[in-house]
Amino acid sequence: MSHYFYKCFDCNTEFDSAFIEDNFNYLCPRCGLAEKEKPLRGVLTVEYDYDSIKKNLSRKKFLSLRAGEISSYPELLPLSYSYKNQNVFDKLNSQIAENIILSSHPATEYTLHNSTIKIFDDTRNPTLSFKDRASIVIALKALQLGITEISAASTGNAGSSLAGICARFGLRSKIFVPQRIPAAKRMQIQIYGADLYIVQGDYDQAFDLCLEVSNDMKWYNRNTAYNSLTIEGKKTSAYDLFISEKGILPEYIFIPSGDGVILAGMYKGFYDLLRLGWIDKLPKLMCVQAMGSDAIIRYTETNSFTYYPADSVADSICAGAPRNLFMSAAAVKTSCGEGIRVSDTQILSAQALSASLFGIIVEPAASASLAGFLKYKEYHDSIDNALLMFTGNGMKDIESLMKNIPKLNSYSSEQIKSFVITNK
Amino acid sequence: MSHYFYKCFDCNTEFDSAFIEDNFNYLCPRCGLAEKEKPLRGVLTVEYDYDSIKKNLSRKKFLSLRAGEISSYPELLPLSYSYKNQNVFDKLNSQIAENIILSSHPATEYTLHNSTIKIFDDTRNPTLSFKDRASIVIALKALQLGITEISAASTGNAGSSLAGICARFGLRSKIFVPQRIPAAKRMQIQIYGADLYIVQGDYDQAFDLCLEVSNDMKWYNRNTAYNSLTIEGKKTSAYDLFISEKGILPEYIFIPSGDGVILAGMYKGFYDLLRLGWIDKLPKLMCVQAMGSDAIIRYTETNSFTYYPADSVADSICAGAPRNLFMSAAAVKTSCGEGIRVSDTQILSAQALSASLFGIIVEPAASASLAGFLKYKEYHDSIDNALLMFTGNGMKDIESLMKNIPKLNSYSSEQIKSFVITNK
Repeated sequence: MSHYFYKCFDCNTEFDSAFIEDNFNYLCPRCGLAEKEKPLRGVLTVEYDYDSIKKNLSRKKFLSLRAGEISSYPELLPLSYSYKNQNVFDKLNSQIAENIILSSHPATEYTLHNSTIKIFDDTRNPTLSFKDRASIVIALKALQLGITEISAASTGNAGSSLAGICARFGLRSKIFVPQRIPAAKRMQIQIYGADLYIVQGDYDQAFDLCLEVSNDMKWYNRNTAYNSLTIEGKKTSAYDLFISEKGILPEYIFIPSGDGVILAGMYKGFYDLLRLGWIDKLPKLMCVQAMGSDAIIRYTETNSFTYYPADSVADSICAGAPRNLFMSAAAVKTSCGEGIRVSDTQILSAQALSASLFGIIVEPAASASLAGFLKYKEYHDSIDNALLMFTGNGMKDIESLMKNIPKLNSYSSEQIKSFVITNK
Repeated sequence: MSHYFYKCFDCNTEFDSAFIEDNFNYLCPRCGLAEKEKPLRGVLTVEYDYDSIKKNLSRKKFLSLRAGEISSYPELLPLSYSYKNQNVFDKLNSQIAENIILSSHPATEYTLHNSTIKIFDDTRNPTLSFKDRASIVIALKALQLGITEISAASTGNAGSSLAGICARFGLRSKIFVPQRIPAAKRMQIQIYGADLYIVQGDYDQAFDLCLEVSNDMKWYNRNTAYNSLTIEGKKTSAYDLFISEKGILPEYIFIPSGDGVILAGMYKGFYDLLRLGWIDKLPKLMCVQAMGSDAIIRYTETNSFTYYPADSVADSICAGAPRNLFMSAAAVKTSCGEGIRVSDTQILSAQALSASLFGIIVEPAASASLAGFLKYKEYHDSIDNALLMFTGNGMKDIESLMKNIPKLNSYSSEQIKSFVITNK
C-alpha cells in the first residue's frame, strides 16, 4: 500500500498509485483527453494520507528543514522508498543529488513605492529555471520505475531543464521542440547531450508527436501537466517558501502564468500545508499573464475557453491552450486571487528594473510578476506583504535582453575622461 | 588597532591597514607599479594575527560553519566591524546579504577514466561567476569606507559581477571595458544599471583609464590584483572547500588561470588555514592556461616575462600581461603544483563533456580546468583525488556555445517518427 494515490481533477475518481503507474497512465483513464489546441482534460492530482503524515512530521520539524532540500520530506512526494530494487531516496541523498539542491534563499525584502515586497528567487537552480523542481521529481520517478529515457515537448525551458537534470542523473533525455525555439535554449538542450527533435510545426505539434513517440518507445514522459508529477515537483516552491519564511506566508503571491502549472503547483503545496493544519489560509494567488496570452484569466472571467494563438516577448508563458487551464483557474478562485494582464512593454521595463534594483536578471516571463505587481499597485495603492516569483534566469534568453538594452558607442580614452569630468 | 595589516609581496614591508586605506593606496607605496603591458609590481597581501584568531576560533568551530556564508568569519576578512559609523557585518548579515550567499554546494564526486575527481561548482553565484567572491568583499569595504561608487576595468566577467553586486547593495558601479567585449557580457553589465564606458582600445587601455579616472573621481577601485581585496575575496573559495569537504582537502586542484588572481586567492585561503594550523600541507595548485595565453606557466619555467598579445576562445583567461603574475607563479611553485597548457579545441571539447557528463554548462575559461585534468592524466595515469574549479557559467557566453554546437535541421512529424522507430 502506497503512501499516496491519484485523483482526477475533473471527475474526482480516486486511483491506486500502482494502477496508474504500472499502466503508464498519465491522465485520468476515464476522462483524460490531450487534444491539439485544447487544454488537457483529466489531469491527475496526488493525494496523501495527511492524518498519518501529521503523526510523524510536526509543523515545527518541517519548519526546521533546510529549504531546497527536497529529499528531507519523502512522505510528501509521490515516490516510493523502495520499488523495483531502486532506493530512490538513497539516490536523492547521494553526492550527485547534493549538487542538485535547489537555490532557495530566504525571500529578500524590499520597499517599492511604499509597499513591502519580497522576492522568491528561483533563477539559480541547476539549469537556471524553476522547471528544475519538476524535472528532479520526474527523474527520481523514472529511476524508481527503472526507466532510463525521459521525453518532453517544450518551447525551451522545460526541455533544457529536463536535459540538464537527466545529465546529472545519468539518464537520457528526448526533447521535442517547435521550429521557433530561441537559439540559446536550443543550444542549452543540445550541449546537455539530449536527443533533440526539431519539429516542423508549433508547440502543439511537438506535444502530440512527443506523446505518440514516447508511448511507442516506452519513454517516461514529462510533458507539463500531462504528467501530474510536474505539479508535485513545482509544489516544492510553496514548501520552500513556508520553510524559509518560518511559517509566515505573504498575503499575495504574483505568479507568471502560461500553461498554469507553476500556479497549480504552488496551490498544491499550500493545499498540502492546509490539509496538514500547518497554515490556516491560502495566500492569494495572483495570475499574471501577458496580454497576448491570457487564456487562464479569460477563463476565470468567462468560464469558457477559446483558442487564440499566443504572442508575447515572454516566450516561456506563451500558451494559447494552457495545458493546466482548469486547475490553475480554480486555484486563482479558491485562493481569492486575481488575474492581471501585462503588456510586453511593461514586462521588458520590469526586467530592466529588477536587474538594477535587485541585482537579479530575470527572463521576460519571470519579470512579468514584477510588472503585474506594479500594475496592480496602480489601482490598489495599499497593497502590502506581496511576494514575487522570479522563475527563470535572463541569461537563458539573450535575444530578449538585446531588445531591451541600447547599443552603446565606444569612445577614446580622452573623450571618456573629459565626459566624466564635465559631469562631475 | 586593526585585526589585519598589509604586506608587500615584492619587498615584504608591512603597512598598517589604516595607513593604506586612508590614503587610498592600493599597491605598495614603495614598489607599486601599474604599467601598460606589464604585470603589476607591489601587490599587497593581507596578513592577520593568526595566533590571536586561533584563541577564539577553533578548527572544529570553523568546520561547522555553512559554506558560502562569508559573514560567519569576520576575523579572517579585512573589514572592520565598525568604521565610520557603518557596521559592515550588520549589512552583510541583513536580508539583502542573505540573498547574496554564494552557491557553495559540497563538491560532487565523479569517476572519470578510473580517476576520482570532484567538482567545485561556482557557476551559480549571484551573477553566475566566481568573481562575485571578490566583488562582495570589495562592496563591503566600500560601504565601510563610506564610498558609494566602485569602478573596475574588465573584459566582461569582473565588470558584470561588480555591476550585479553593486545593484544588490545599492551602490553605483563604473565599468571600463575594451571595444571587443562579447555582447552578452556587455548587456549583463548594462542591465544591472552600471555606468559603462567602452574604451577604444584593449584591456590595458581600459585598465589604465579606469585607474586615472577613479583616482580623479575618488571612486573605489576593484581592478583585479591592483586592489588586493580581490585576492582576499577569492580566498573564500578555499575556505568553502575546506568547510564543505569537512577538512579533508584534495591533493590536486586544477585552476583556470589568466590574470592569476583566482590561483593566488585560493593559495591565500590555504595559506591562512596553514598558518592557523588547521591543515598541514597545501593542495598542489595546478595552473591551467590556454596555449595562446600562457604567461604564468612561462614564468614558472623561465623566471622571466615577455609580453605577447593573448588569444584564446576562453576570453576570461586571456591575459597577455597577467596582473598577478609573480604571486600566482610563486603559489604554483610553493604548493608543488604544475602548469598545463590546453588548446582551444581541448577547451571546447571539455565544455561539451562537462555539460553532458555533469549537467553543468561552464564557460570555456572554466572548462579549461577539465581540459587540463584530461591532458595531465594522459601522462600521469595514476592521478587521483583531484578537484576541478568551475568558475563561470556558460550561459554568460552564448557566442562560444554557438561555436561548439552544430545547428540541427528540423523535420516533419512523420520523418521524426520513422527515424526514431528505425533506430529503435
